[in-house]
Amino acid sequence: MRKVKVVLSYDGTNFKGFQKQSHERSVQEQLEKVLTKMHKSYTRIEGSGRTDAHVHALGQVITFVTNLTLDEKSFKKALNALIDHDIYIHDVEFVDMDFHPRFSPKNKTYRYKINCGEYNCFEKNYCLQLNRSLNVALMQQASSYLLGVHNFISYCSNDESDDTVRRIDQITITQHGDYVVLEFTGNGFLRYMIRKIVGALIQVGLERIPPVRIEEILKKEKKEACKYKANPEGLYLLKVTY
Amino acid sequence: MRKVKVVLSYDGTNFKGFQKQSHERSVQEQLEKVLTKMHKSYTRIEGSGRTDAHVHALGQVITFVTNLTLDEKSFKKALNALIDHDIYIHDVEFVDMDFHPRFSPKNKTYRYKINCGEYNCFEKNYCLQLNRSLNVALMQQASSYLLGVHNFISYCSNDESDDTVRRIDQITITQHGDYVVLEFTGNGFLRYMIRKIVGALIQVGLERIPPVRIEEILKKEKKEACKYKANPEGLYLLKVTY
Repeated sequence: MRKVKVVLSYDGTNFKGFQKQSHERSVQEQLEKVLTKMHKSYTRIEGSGRTDAHVHALGQVITFVTNLTLDEKSFKKALNALIDHDIYIHDVEFVDMDFHPRFSPKNKTYRYKINCGEYNCFEKNYCLQLNRSLNVALMQQASSYLLGVHNFISYCSNDESDDTVRRIDQITITQHGDYVVLEFTGNGFLRYMIRKIVGALIQVGLERIPPVRIEEILKKEKKEACKYKANPEGLYLLKVTY
Repeated sequence: MRKVKVVLSYDGTNFKGFQKQSHERSVQEQLEKVLTKMHKSYTRIEGSGRTDAHVHALGQVITFVTNLTLDEKSFKKALNALIDHDIYIHDVEFVDMDFHPRFSPKNKTYRYKINCGEYNCFEKNYCLQLNRSLNVALMQQASSYLLGVHNFISYCSNDESDDTVRRIDQITITQHGDYVVLEFTGNGFLRYMIRKIVGALIQVGLERIPPVRIEEILKKEKKEACKYKANPEGLYLLKVTY
């Protein structure tokens, strides 16, 4: 038996998220369907974490255990030949049996993409169509309050029941022509955490709330303290570092 | 009564083409539905020409006749508010009643986009995923045979019954990183003409046929002389010049 680590992209548009759900199309379900076919027996995958419906990935990591004798290159070829066209396998690597994609990461990076220019019908599923200018300097100032170790309960799903303390190592906010791109690197992110933070930072960028409000919301340490949440279409799981 | 000229983009992915067909979603049907709602009576549009299923537009031109007293800016706003999100109205302009989008153009420009790099699951509907290198210099040489006035019957749909003589003014083929982009400007293009030409030029770029074969196929002046046809996803109606 060998453990196989896979790095993959997916276009989240037509998925109800990463995690398997009954009667819904998910990334996990598609991958397990193909692997089960290859192995002729049910083959379960583990992911580095879930992504929500319509959220994309450029570097999701999954593992599975195999008894097949294919080499890494042949695994990549076989998987890409069998998988639906909105998933793409970039890399296949054999790893130690004790490697776990969810428990071993050093950090994760997410990207959020906003179109501040004219509406673009080709990108409606691939970035937030804000179609208004943002004050990036104010957003950068506001984002600095979030760096370090904090209880992010104000900025997560109301259903969150786990420990809500996380560490954010870096936030970059850059303008590229009409687009504003935010990147977050940290030791892990709660459900809706990035979308709620981005939602609040957009309010700062639109000059509707002052940068310090980001810190005030954080300090409340209270569910539902952040009323803003950016759409899923702009969010990408960029990479998971081990 | 006034005639209104509209410049629009559409993402062709979920359309069965520009032209109205029974029981199929088309760009014409969507536009007429919105205009009929605004006018409270059936409002027909004229387009600069059809595009096939999955073909995109960045500068399609349509016209309609109106008795509404909205100004140009308000027309744009109202149309974008009512139309589905895979269509976007860039510009609205009042024109002479004798302006006709199909009969008045000086020329039209189409773009075809090819990804020669690794498969990209986010662009599967937006360019041809060739995922192989192309010899652009050979393609440029081959394309020169097509410039000027020719009978393009070898490079069109087998169902074509109209006059098949057309004039191509310019073909540019450029490499941008992993992408090869072809642009064609001419006085009009037959059904499948660009996709068949691109299909043949790709064979040249892959060094499977010599550049001169493009001219030989043209000179045959025979239906089905070109056996190649590139996928619709890579094709964009870029602009129509009047």
